[in-house]
Amino acid sequence: MKQKLSVVKIGGNIIEDVQGLSHLLELFSKMDGHKILVHGGGKKATEIGNKLGVEAKMTNGRRITDSQSLDVAIMVYGGLVNKKIVAQLQALHCNTIGMSGADGNSIIAHKRPVKEIDFGLVGDVDSINSNNIASLLKAEFTPVFCALSHDGKGQLFNTNADTIAAELASGMSNEFETTLHYCFEKKGVLQNIDDENSVIQHIDSKKYKELLAEGIIADGMLPKMHNCFQALQKNIKQVCIGDSEMLQGTTTNFTTLTL
Amino acid sequence: MKQKLSVVKIGGNIIEDVQGLSHLLELFSKMDGHKILVHGGGKKATEIGNKLGVEAKMTNGRRITDSQSLDVAIMVYGGLVNKKIVAQLQALHCNTIGMSGADGNSIIAHKRPVKEIDFGLVGDVDSINSNNIASLLKAEFTPVFCALSHDGKGQLFNTNADTIAAELASGMSNEFETTLHYCFEKKGVLQNIDDENSVIQHIDSKKYKELLAEGIIADGMLPKMHNCFQALQKNIKQVCIGDSEMLQGTTTNFTTLTL
Repeated sequence: MKQKLSVVKIGGNIIEDVQGLSHLLELFSKMDGHKILVHGGGKKATEIGNKLGVEAKMTNGRRITDSQSLDVAIMVYGGLVNKKIVAQLQALHCNTIGMSGADGNSIIAHKRPVKEIDFGLVGDVDSINSNNIASLLKAEFTPVFCALSHDGKGQLFNTNADTIAAELASGMSNEFETTLHYCFEKKGVLQNIDDENSVIQHIDSKKYKELLAEGIIADGMLPKMHNCFQALQKNIKQVCIGDSEMLQGTTTNFTTLTL
Repeated sequence: MKQKLSVVKIGGNIIEDVQGLSHLLELFSKMDGHKILVHGGGKKATEIGNKLGVEAKMTNGRRITDSQSLDVAIMVYGGLVNKKIVAQLQALHCNTIGMSGADGNSIIAHKRPVKEIDFGLVGDVDSINSNNIASLLKAEFTPVFCALSHDGKGQLFNTNADTIAAELASGMSNEFETTLHYCFEKKGVLQNIDDENSVIQHIDSKKYKELLAEGIIADGMLPKMHNCFQALQKNIKQVCIGDSEMLQGTTTNFTTLTL
């Protein structure tokens, strides 16, 4: 039987919230079995970038990563945010190692091809080095990944943290029974956006189509759900969406997605 | 018989020099056996700190690390410099993992006690987690350490990179036969400071005392040599000082120190 692996992605708003982050990390540290944490950088990267005079570049409303913005991402995601999370988790006796996709050659990507927009130094993931990651897990380390990939030729890339989490969960699924947890500030996918307690507990492909047709899934939830169902098509056992409490294992008040 | 381990510390001036760094990393990637790279941040931390409006604080000519300067160190040493070195070494097929002292709980330290000066968030090393580091080495990973330690309670510290390297080499010496290499821009300890080719090939404790008495070892070389002989008293087999070429193994034109 395959061993279980939980891949937990924490949202930007949680990273901004010192107390919320501490609480999440405490719950994460208590999770049984193999686990991987994935984080982006929240607004800190924009804040540091502004101070350094690196303006966020946009084309047609899409963010472009030039070499200066990439350096900011490497500093903030790979340095400041990652190392502080690692130090906090070590204090909770969770033996973490902070990683980018270059560390352990873990996440191999290529520069996103230029179509209408040249996104710059943004990487689309080609593969996950499951052997290297598995050997860290088996040595009882807990990897903490930031949202950076690399091309194996010396170039780092910015890659969306949701994507990194999904690719990791998918890439590890040959060897592990993987569950992907998207942790954010809401309790799950809501039937009624104004009612925090209207969590839809389970969504499968059929229900997903219904919810789309009814317009229940809209705005920011659209790309998130799209990513989840894409991930499910890549051998991930299930995807869970909810707030930190879902990591406890004692609550069922979050949304579970299956094909 | 113990396996060999090389701990290679690269100086700040090499990090500043793009071509010099590439050359060093190429030689490092070709070194046989287990190895660990250690780096500081060079002038990049000061440059980024200045841009962010974080002034380097000094008391009696000594640098003080406040919480803002520590954040800059975490960003630059732990992020920018570390991840770029990791990515470059991966391109050379050296399977690196970039680490601070918090990663893998590797380097445990305490805040330097306040005597005449409060150095702030500077860590004096208590111990090296040789088990965790050894399990990375045995899994064929090459750790790349930046100059950060932690207290195991969530606090990161700034720690001098020479010290980190010496502590790592010493801490691993129970299990490995360790050699500590200090790589800098000169070929070794020079008999005549104006003659680059006057490298003293071997210095033992007796010779060291003679050189000190003769004033051959002076200025910046004084603390460096002091560190080396301190390291040698902690079970390190030998310490080598020289430029990148000493990593080749085909040259003997560098300085070897033994007790």
